[in-house]
Amino acid sequence: MRARTGSVTPGAAWTAVGTFEEWCLARIRQALAGASLRVQLWDGRSIRLSDHLPVATVVVRDRWTLVRLLVDSDVAFGEAYARGRIEVQGDLVAALETIDRACAGRPFQRRRPRARPIAPGASRHNVHTHYDLGNQFYRLWLDDQLLYTCAYFAHPGMTLEEAQRAKMEHVCRKLRLRPGDRVVEAGCGWGALALHMARQYGVIVRAYNISANQLAYARDRAAREGLDDRVTFIDGDYRSIEGPADAFVSVGMLEHVGRHNYADLGRAIARVIDPARGRGLLHFIGRNAPLELSAWIDKHVFPGAYPPALSEVLPDVLEASRLSLIDVENLRLHYARTLACWHARFEDHVDEVRAMFDDAFVRTWRLYLAGSEAAFLAGDMQLFQVVFGRPLDNDQPWTRQDWYEPHADAVL
Amino acid sequence: MRARTGSVTPGAAWTAVGTFEEWCLARIRQALAGASLRVQLWDGRSIRLSDHLPVATVVVRDRWTLVRLLVDSDVAFGEAYARGRIEVQGDLVAALETIDRACAGRPFQRRRPRARPIAPGASRHNVHTHYDLGNQFYRLWLDDQLLYTCAYFAHPGMTLEEAQRAKMEHVCRKLRLRPGDRVVEAGCGWGALALHMARQYGVIVRAYNISANQLAYARDRAAREGLDDRVTFIDGDYRSIEGPADAFVSVGMLEHVGRHNYADLGRAIARVIDPARGRGLLHFIGRNAPLELSAWIDKHVFPGAYPPALSEVLPDVLEASRLSLIDVENLRLHYARTLACWHARFEDHVDEVRAMFDDAFVRTWRLYLAGSEAAFLAGDMQLFQVVFGRPLDNDQPWTRQDWYEPHADAVL
Repeated sequence: MRARTGSVTPGAAWTAVGTFEEWCLARIRQALAGASLRVQLWDGRSIRLSDHLPVATVVVRDRWTLVRLLVDSDVAFGEAYARGRIEVQGDLVAALETIDRACAGRPFQRRRPRARPIAPGASRHNVHTHYDLGNQFYRLWLDDQLLYTCAYFAHPGMTLEEAQRAKMEHVCRKLRLRPGDRVVEAGCGWGALALHMARQYGVIVRAYNISANQLAYARDRAAREGLDDRVTFIDGDYRSIEGPADAFVSVGMLEHVGRHNYADLGRAIARVIDPARGRGLLHFIGRNAPLELSAWIDKHVFPGAYPPALSEVLPDVLEASRLSLIDVENLRLHYARTLACWHARFEDHVDEVRAMFDDAFVRTWRLYLAGSEAAFLAGDMQLFQVVFGRPLDNDQPWTRQDWYEPHADAVL
Repeated sequence: MRARTGSVTPGAAWTAVGTFEEWCLARIRQALAGASLRVQLWDGRSIRLSDHLPVATVVVRDRWTLVRLLVDSDVAFGEAYARGRIEVQGDLVAALETIDRACAGRPFQRRRPRARPIAPGASRHNVHTHYDLGNQFYRLWLDDQLLYTCAYFAHPGMTLEEAQRAKMEHVCRKLRLRPGDRVVEAGCGWGALALHMARQYGVIVRAYNISANQLAYARDRAAREGLDDRVTFIDGDYRSIEGPADAFVSVGMLEHVGRHNYADLGRAIARVIDPARGRGLLHFIGRNAPLELSAWIDKHVFPGAYPPALSEVLPDVLEASRLSLIDVENLRLHYARTLACWHARFEDHVDEVRAMFDDAFVRTWRLYLAGSEAAFLAGDMQLFQVVFGRPLDNDQPWTRQDWYEPHADAVL
């Protein structure tokens, strides 16, 4: 009989004659073939998932967790991690990235995910669940203006604060804002972009949101900065936007709209922007191909969220509304870096977060932040900025060169 | 009875009591409501299609042409124009643009066009029909390197020659070419891009084409320039491409592939490019939404061609082959300007063209060049450059800034 402790090398004969636990481990090795990981059981037995040096060891603390991993890997992993029944010893992001890469290598099936309609009431509930955890909480680990979307590291050495301001500037340049323009923003978060556009470009903004905490914060900030004559924060989602507007912008909202509602969104945009010169930008987390969101994220972090493939967005949002696609930029690695910044700040304040919530919350959010960074690094998630306009508008910049001019100090 | 000559203002009562011709004119006015045009009949009667000042007068020379215009407007207009049975007095491009814009304003139906498979033999025939009209002919009005695709006017003052070199440079930058890289080009025209890549970037190119005239020209040029050790011109289409390659590029070919074959194209690309670092660029004429090509263009200029919407290209070419979209740029107005350059040179050499072919050919090509420019100006056609890569490749440029650095003199 083999020793109950010590390492087992891949391909060893024990899988054929082993115990139930050894059979489970063999199944995991099969599912994650090629991952640079060691998996260790509660009794010290361990297995490497490939010949590569492991970047981390995943410790499974009990038999029930091991079984659940086989049946419902995604949710089981997240829930067991939250309760401390799974530990990751070593680099958490690297561990999750090697899992993502191992999954990416499996034979491809284009999974056309189930589409569930999201009713207005459900949107409000979904948004509340995530965004109304308290401004105090987000202030601990976001940048100083509370931007909770992908930053833009125009230069490698930028801080998170600088990169978030560079993102707002990048968006404004793509929108070709001019003083006096009327801008509609759908899903405005804590209001930073709306205020930036009004302050730096002299535009008039109507900014919509359905998170009560965020709206209160944004209105207060507008008043303090003397911008409340130019920026109106409105309680409503994309369905309630009103024009006329010269530009439409939405940063990090499309993920919460639901595929069933893309045509509604397209019609709302087409209704409010100027018939001749209207233009817009959609910034959203997407996919290379249609794929269901992680069930664990849906259950514990972002209920109702869905990062779409471009082929799901373009027909209903743009093509059906006769809007013309001008530009798409994929900022995938910028989101990985943004998440790394957030995660580092989160860990710097982890005791305060634990005091606000509990240890399971801390571990859930740690896994969410690390897992999201890993997903962007492994090419599993994309960040698309899509610029569009009216098909007949020929007043376009001749090239994209202007977007790459140095930023004025006043802006950054 | 009303005078047989002289102008009839819109909305006048004569449509109710008029002759058959007047009924036909009223139908045309209805179909092209809002167009800034005057339509004049063989007997001098004329009608304005809107209250706007006409940019041109379309003269219809006989009753049979007038009737055909109602039944089969697109083909009838082109064929009658070629035979001189329709004349356009005034600015031809502006006349066609105002027609396109009037059509664009009509209630929108997403026309899902018929998809016809294109067999390899048909591709060869289709390509032969257009591209084998003789290098002599194309030399009269293309740039000095015979690039028959959209140029890139990086600066407004560029000549056509400069803009075509800037286009090649733009493509090379997007492909991130490095010395020694192996590049596959599908549909290489007269070989200018393949030779540019080899000369300026020191890459090894396998360039495919099924036009005999173009291949002969390209091989001869490679030998003359001493680049035939680095560039191989191969008789074959995208189905016959072979790797391994670091990059795939195709400029102005996708329009001839046919929608039925997009998945084949995607598989061919995914098969030849490096599994880790492979990348590519597709440059093609597209649409804002799926729409059948002009039947006249299909019959008389580009048999089998189809400019797709992005929503038609992405699922089969990229998503099904697990390729990741990195960048899309719409160069619509660059193609309008390119066509204006070609058209001007064409008219400069119109007597030579007429001597090579006949007057109907001259008029057909004049309409094709002017009509294409109008279609890009009216937002009816788009020019997409799509950059893609492997999902797991993190060796990406951080921003697109490098694409906008000044060009070295040696290159342009």
